[in-house]
Amino acid sequence: MRALTLNDDGVHVQMDRPEPDPAAGEVLVRVLRAGICETDLQLIRGYKGFRGVLGHEFVGIATTGRFAGHRVVGEINCSCQVCHTCLAGRPGHCASRTVLGILAHDGAFAEFIAVPERNLHRVPDSVDTDMAVFTEPLAAAFQIPTQVPIARTDRIAVLGDGRLGNLCAQVLAHESDHVTVVGKHASKLTLLERAGIATRLLNAIDSEDAGTRPRQDVDIVVDCTGSATGLTTALHMVRPRGTIVLKTTIAGAQTLSLAPVVVDEVTIIGSRCGPFDRALEALAARSIDVRSLIHDRFNLSDGIRALERAAEPGVLKVLIDVGA
Amino acid sequence: MRALTLNDDGVHVQMDRPEPDPAAGEVLVRVLRAGICETDLQLIRGYKGFRGVLGHEFVGIATTGRFAGHRVVGEINCSCQVCHTCLAGRPGHCASRTVLGILAHDGAFAEFIAVPERNLHRVPDSVDTDMAVFTEPLAAAFQIPTQVPIARTDRIAVLGDGRLGNLCAQVLAHESDHVTVVGKHASKLTLLERAGIATRLLNAIDSEDAGTRPRQDVDIVVDCTGSATGLTTALHMVRPRGTIVLKTTIAGAQTLSLAPVVVDEVTIIGSRCGPFDRALEALAARSIDVRSLIHDRFNLSDGIRALERAAEPGVLKVLIDVGA
Repeated sequence: MRALTLNDDGVHVQMDRPEPDPAAGEVLVRVLRAGICETDLQLIRGYKGFRGVLGHEFVGIATTGRFAGHRVVGEINCSCQVCHTCLAGRPGHCASRTVLGILAHDGAFAEFIAVPERNLHRVPDSVDTDMAVFTEPLAAAFQIPTQVPIARTDRIAVLGDGRLGNLCAQVLAHESDHVTVVGKHASKLTLLERAGIATRLLNAIDSEDAGTRPRQDVDIVVDCTGSATGLTTALHMVRPRGTIVLKTTIAGAQTLSLAPVVVDEVTIIGSRCGPFDRALEALAARSIDVRSLIHDRFNLSDGIRALERAAEPGVLKVLIDVGA
Repeated sequence: MRALTLNDDGVHVQMDRPEPDPAAGEVLVRVLRAGICETDLQLIRGYKGFRGVLGHEFVGIATTGRFAGHRVVGEINCSCQVCHTCLAGRPGHCASRTVLGILAHDGAFAEFIAVPERNLHRVPDSVDTDMAVFTEPLAAAFQIPTQVPIARTDRIAVLGDGRLGNLCAQVLAHESDHVTVVGKHASKLTLLERAGIATRLLNAIDSEDAGTRPRQDVDIVVDCTGSATGLTTALHMVRPRGTIVLKTTIAGAQTLSLAPVVVDEVTIIGSRCGPFDRALEALAARSIDVRSLIHDRFNLSDGIRALERAAEPGVLKVLIDVGA
């Protein structure tokens, strides 16, 4: 089959990769469409040392099992179901898990992917395939309200106007009346303003912070910058006893002062994958706009170009067409 | 009056410093005894650029106000009571606050200190002056259970066997049956074992962490190390979706990898000052042992030696006798 793989010498389109051999409990899914995520770009830069087929945002058709013949999306963490962590109700954190396209498990930039049947969710007929590709990143955005209680009066700042920042802002705008996205790209911010979400260019924050004491008046700051400086910016904005949600992982070490965390009694919460059911419901209800995030699409055979395009500044979601 | 002051050229015993002039709402307190805290040592090293009389752990006799003639201890944050933060119920985080002996307010290593009357708590007769000196750091330990729900079955690791680590461990041992202090000093750990608290030498952790994947099985890790590596060690120990409480401030920048915070969805909570009433109750009930933490005492005139002694490895609390 065709597949986009990451090896020691970089990314390749492979034309004759063997189809994955489903393990017990796994279903072979014929991939229709996939999306490129910031994590894919980080993996290519060396994050986690992944080798294999990239891709973890996908829609496909299950070839076997209870969803056979139907469109499905798949949760990415493949857990053992028997360890202490799984039994404690945290299978997404299973120490011996594999992760589709991220950790020891071939991903979805390929004609077929093997996925544990328990990870699959059927896509409602009212959600088309382009929209359904966003289930995984949208679920990650819906993880925030499962971790942090949010009041309608809470002032929320989302740092970063990229793919994930956009989805987080849209999700949080359903929970609070005071969501502002702080970003660097006028075009991406305009997109959010069209969706009724307030925005600010990062420069405005910078000059504010030039004073001796920055204005710390935000209840919840969500860091979607994917930048090593994101947490420091968040610490400059969050109010005492406020909350910072870290959504993006940074490869390697960061240097920052953590004294403000203690002095201001700030809470920092790491946030990763989220509930697929809530994401699919929101897509079916059209309560989140994902279509305007699609900036380009490529055939799987042009996967290298697709990755390059996704890495360009100002580009939001790039889709990969695999099958029909 | 005599006072131990920090100036541009270091710490001095001043013999003729003018007595503080209480502002509106402040009470002049005649200091009996004071304690040296890690923060005092950090201030001397340059943290926060403080200049003035050091000291924020103290017992004294109020000379005026409703506690006149009685022994008192004092909360250290002096807030404006009118700003948004104060009115929101977070006076300890008032942006225009001063802090006794830490920020723009002369401290307690002196014969007199001026303290807002609302900050004072009367010391019960059953709590002697040596014990009462521990009210402020013990309150800081009692802040943890106000921020983090703790179950009796929670596995808790306290990193650091120093002054604050000891008090945090004792407080938490009343909430959970599984508290372990991880420290570097056999003598300090022995003290905790005598109080019935499990301990481990840090070396044991180090060798465990030499494996490819450290054992992450602790529900709550409390970082009292006062070390730039404390948070990294905590991240190696805490379980996925566990909680790290940061108790000690580190001057300057730290370098660490924050990706595990996101991947493991860890919560990091900064924790500073706490409830004086709970600390005084615990001292009166003898439910916390503070007396065995007193390693030395000096007269105020020997304040320099007292600070040097407090900075020695293995030394817990050093008291300063000011008056009688």
